[in-house]
Amino acid sequence: MSSPAPFHTLALPHHPYGLYAERLATVPALLDAHALDSPQVIVVTDEHVAAHYLRPLTHQLEKAGRTVVPIVLPPGEQTKAPVPLQRIYDTTLTAGIDRATPVLALGGGVVGDLAGFAAATLLRGLPLVHLPTSLIAQVDSSIGGKTGINHAVGKNLIGAFYQPVFVNADPTTLNSLPLREWQSGLAEVVKHALIAAPDFFDELETYHADVLSREPQRVSSVVQRAAAIKAGLVADDVHEQGQRALLNFGHTFGHALESVCGYGVLTHGEAVFLGMRVALRVSHRLTPHPSLVRALEIVQGFPVDASVQSVARGDLMASMQHDKKVKNGTVRYVLLRAIGDPYITTDVPAQVIYDAWADTLAESPLRLTTTAASNE
Amino acid sequence: MSSPAPFHTLALPHHPYGLYAERLATVPALLDAHALDSPQVIVVTDEHVAAHYLRPLTHQLEKAGRTVVPIVLPPGEQTKAPVPLQRIYDTTLTAGIDRATPVLALGGGVVGDLAGFAAATLLRGLPLVHLPTSLIAQVDSSIGGKTGINHAVGKNLIGAFYQPVFVNADPTTLNSLPLREWQSGLAEVVKHALIAAPDFFDELETYHADVLSREPQRVSSVVQRAAAIKAGLVADDVHEQGQRALLNFGHTFGHALESVCGYGVLTHGEAVFLGMRVALRVSHRLTPHPSLVRALEIVQGFPVDASVQSVARGDLMASMQHDKKVKNGTVRYVLLRAIGDPYITTDVPAQVIYDAWADTLAESPLRLTTTAASNE
Repeated sequence: MSSPAPFHTLALPHHPYGLYAERLATVPALLDAHALDSPQVIVVTDEHVAAHYLRPLTHQLEKAGRTVVPIVLPPGEQTKAPVPLQRIYDTTLTAGIDRATPVLALGGGVVGDLAGFAAATLLRGLPLVHLPTSLIAQVDSSIGGKTGINHAVGKNLIGAFYQPVFVNADPTTLNSLPLREWQSGLAEVVKHALIAAPDFFDELETYHADVLSREPQRVSSVVQRAAAIKAGLVADDVHEQGQRALLNFGHTFGHALESVCGYGVLTHGEAVFLGMRVALRVSHRLTPHPSLVRALEIVQGFPVDASVQSVARGDLMASMQHDKKVKNGTVRYVLLRAIGDPYITTDVPAQVIYDAWADTLAESPLRLTTTAASNE
Repeated sequence: MSSPAPFHTLALPHHPYGLYAERLATVPALLDAHALDSPQVIVVTDEHVAAHYLRPLTHQLEKAGRTVVPIVLPPGEQTKAPVPLQRIYDTTLTAGIDRATPVLALGGGVVGDLAGFAAATLLRGLPLVHLPTSLIAQVDSSIGGKTGINHAVGKNLIGAFYQPVFVNADPTTLNSLPLREWQSGLAEVVKHALIAAPDFFDELETYHADVLSREPQRVSSVVQRAAAIKAGLVADDVHEQGQRALLNFGHTFGHALESVCGYGVLTHGEAVFLGMRVALRVSHRLTPHPSLVRALEIVQGFPVDASVQSVARGDLMASMQHDKKVKNGTVRYVLLRAIGDPYITTDVPAQVIYDAWADTLAESPLRLTTTAASNE
């Protein structure tokens, strides 16, 4: 059997790696093809993902002569924390790993970030393989080497840049996602199209219904295209000094919403969809362009399924000041001149941002209030 | 005032950095010269070092317009642990750092390893500056980017490779070291000479008394030469795939002694001096050479100041099997054909190692017993 081919190669200068879209049953062959021939393999996953995929993956690995050390963690954002990290350290170090023992991160963004950070810091670096099973993980978080955990002060504040040996995104795993998670995960897909690929945005517009309903052929095409866009941006800017920051389009606003609403009210994707509406409104106000109006209409077509909640304008503004990408207190906004033509600016009048928040939240289940926050 | 010049540049392909030997008062100028112009500076140190140097360094930084966030930790190996690490995370993140905030590691190997790991993992990487104040830190641990903490299973098992922006080793800080720490710290200096620089070993032999008694001129010469040797080996092999492993000369044996005796009985340097005696005996037995006999005599001239204790041969052998550099259970020994001519082998008869342990411990305060360990 010939070795599977990647659908894209992330062209890092000293460490290029492949993005594959093979079934999970192919993982043992992929490990062999990448000279990851250690007899012992660590698999980090969560309870939800384990219920579907841990047993078949373990079976395939054992059939190929490997010993599997499974680490099954509780699902959800609270797992990106010191205690689960310590559990990975304790389990792996007690199992007698060495520097060649691969860590397989089987799951969504939480598992990938946590297992990736553990791999980055065990014995100063174990070989890492991402096996993303959620849409956001397949098109975004598994690509580019960001790993880490949360801190009480904010999300992702403890972490490292650490690249995997390869990424394999089995498209069939997306079928087991709840529909809300699928649809909100499309936020990152739409974002990649908006900042980098007008023709891809056209595809998303044309096949909007198929994409929302997870039509299998369209899923593969969309996921691979979105992943390749992310890989292209990362390859040119691994440590986020420059254009990788464009990937924050919609996120500065979205993170503020997530933070102020409390995590769990909105999915990350829903917050990013709302954040992109704010960003598109601000963009159009500063540099009007017909494609921005069209983009806003398409983005408004993705559902946001939150409960009604009041959000204080002052809290949103204060929260943006605390984003970890803020340097010396200045917020850097990613905006568009047109679809596919992003830029970064620090110079946006506060009133323009207020108006964009007001218009966006008025069309969502959230209610904007102008109560000043203590630090506005 | 012109900017100070480094005494050596560590020639990493994408990230060369300077080793300086300036007084601590020069640190603000060095920060400026390296474009580390953030108004806030984190200083991580321990109580012993703080008593001597924290106030003057803080004064100099404040005079230069900086705000200092000091983090003073308990001294000793037990500080390389999750709780002190978490304390650094909490203090820095609450202080409102951003990605440009420099972390200054002021102290010995423990402070450098811990603060370096914190810098590596805060916001996925803050600029790190090593200000080593111990001999081992100045010639070894601050150079080359190894950072990390200990785990119950073993030392340095959690960590990252993370390079500093620069290293400044103030030679006058060595005067405040206890004499035992100074003399045992010379183990790394002697090791660097043995594996890489016969002429430097000649210097250490000729000026043995001056070196042991810390004669100031000789101290500067010896420290800078030893640091430059380490930097040269690291530059060619950042991730310890090849010749950087030569720096483990004497350490596989020394770590086993430290581990079996319990930490604190021997200093790390004393364990390495004994480990080098073992390694030199094994070396001479496998490939006899007059320079190895001479090397052993010089190494025997450095004092080992431990209390009498019994050490089981089987425990030593078992401990070597658990070193984190062991791959698939095979111990890789660093040996010498002659001074300056190291090699790595996995093929050493157990009896040769037993004999070398026996001869070495017979001339130390430790007593070797042949009681079999449970896993011999």
